[in-house]
Amino acid sequence: MAKSSNKPLILVTNDDGITARGIHELVKVASQFGEVVVVAPDSPQSGMGHAVSIAKPLRLTAVDIFKSLGVKAYQCSGTPVDCVKMANDVVLRRMPDLCLSGINHGSNEAINVIYSGTMSAAMEAAIEGIPSAGFSYLDFNFDADMKLAGNVAEAVIQKMLQQKLPKHFLLNVNIPKVSEKDFKGLKICRQADARWAENFVHRKDPRGEDYYWMTGKFEVRNKSIQTDSNALSQGYASIVPITFDLTHEKNLQWLKENF
Amino acid sequence: MAKSSNKPLILVTNDDGITARGIHELVKVASQFGEVVVVAPDSPQSGMGHAVSIAKPLRLTAVDIFKSLGVKAYQCSGTPVDCVKMANDVVLRRMPDLCLSGINHGSNEAINVIYSGTMSAAMEAAIEGIPSAGFSYLDFNFDADMKLAGNVAEAVIQKMLQQKLPKHFLLNVNIPKVSEKDFKGLKICRQADARWAENFVHRKDPRGEDYYWMTGKFEVRNKSIQTDSNALSQGYASIVPITFDLTHEKNLQWLKENF
Repeated sequence: MAKSSNKPLILVTNDDGITARGIHELVKVASQFGEVVVVAPDSPQSGMGHAVSIAKPLRLTAVDIFKSLGVKAYQCSGTPVDCVKMANDVVLRRMPDLCLSGINHGSNEAINVIYSGTMSAAMEAAIEGIPSAGFSYLDFNFDADMKLAGNVAEAVIQKMLQQKLPKHFLLNVNIPKVSEKDFKGLKICRQADARWAENFVHRKDPRGEDYYWMTGKFEVRNKSIQTDSNALSQGYASIVPITFDLTHEKNLQWLKENF
Repeated sequence: MAKSSNKPLILVTNDDGITARGIHELVKVASQFGEVVVVAPDSPQSGMGHAVSIAKPLRLTAVDIFKSLGVKAYQCSGTPVDCVKMANDVVLRRMPDLCLSGINHGSNEAINVIYSGTMSAAMEAAIEGIPSAGFSYLDFNFDADMKLAGNVAEAVIQKMLQQKLPKHFLLNVNIPKVSEKDFKGLKICRQADARWAENFVHRKDPRGEDYYWMTGKFEVRNKSIQTDSNALSQGYASIVPITFDLTHEKNLQWLKENF
């Protein structure tokens, strides 16, 4: 008992929902390193950003889908950020040593970080002072092969656990969809400057009323060599350290001089 | 006609919904400066963060609630960020010169910026290169007196329109709930370090099933004099310049040395 209580306590969550293949890969990898508890959405929550449920009640249900790994799991009716808040306040007996989110099906490079439920969940934990990382694999497919992404997660978790990390430590890790042979390794980078160019598809419903589907094309605006988008295009897994202090340092100076 | 086309085109949105008092105050103020078009949620969307509707269709309906001000308005079934995307792609004939979001009923100081639909809408416009500002008044009441907040918005809009702003310019403006006599003016500041300490209230529904309500207490962790929370507590309106490049500069250096 004494021995097991020295193992790191690791909270795992995601935004694709608790049944997604990506979270299964992450739970499998994480359980090599410590005691894992899963609190994840009961349905897909992609693109939820940092949404929280302030005006609706939440459900939390124990589920046994990770029993074969000896891992306790709960599904929550809320957003990814709700899951982290409920984990910390309702489920866990103490602050976890690590929070891992993902493995997301699809990229969270560049500006995607602010739309991403995966990264917002990890950020919520980082705000609480829990060292955190979000993992995303550049393959949207439901049945994507998560092996390479799992290997990258393993390497990053190992590095995170073997040293004292700065306060409010948070990583955005993206893994390219390449063969293991073409994979170049980890690269520490900046967030690329990018945007989504939307194009709404306009339709009429059977009652003759208008509705719109959002579609979008991802555009990298700055192809600088130091960015995550560039690293991924070269076959590297990108690691970007993330802050939740959104103060724009340069514009702070500009405002003081001009406003 | 030639004259009117020289007037700035101003997009106004919010997260409290198109019927909220705050957006009415902002539309009234903004329409002194140019041609205003409103695209705002058809229902309250507080706490939606940077959520986008990627898997559900959206409705967009012209409404005439700002007709007395000569302002075109549309309500949208999506999130605040969806509203900005639809405004740019579906509603507006050209890129607006300014995007204003709010006036939010309640504070978006400090860490609230990342949960806030108000600020996420303004950020979405800033990503597109539209100079933007979110305004929030520290009074949650539905019938809050928005006069002081409106005056602050007026002063900020004027400053924004009278000079060339840096690219992707975005401001988080919060207005204290004080009398006009006790109001100290505008203060340019940093984002305070703060968190929400959650406490979930556990209940049983009539069928005997568990559910939870999120409640929270806002805690400022760093009371440094240069922060928005400090400025507000002293009776100033706080102005924080905001970035959407979340790269943590200090940890980037740390990672290069230690990871």
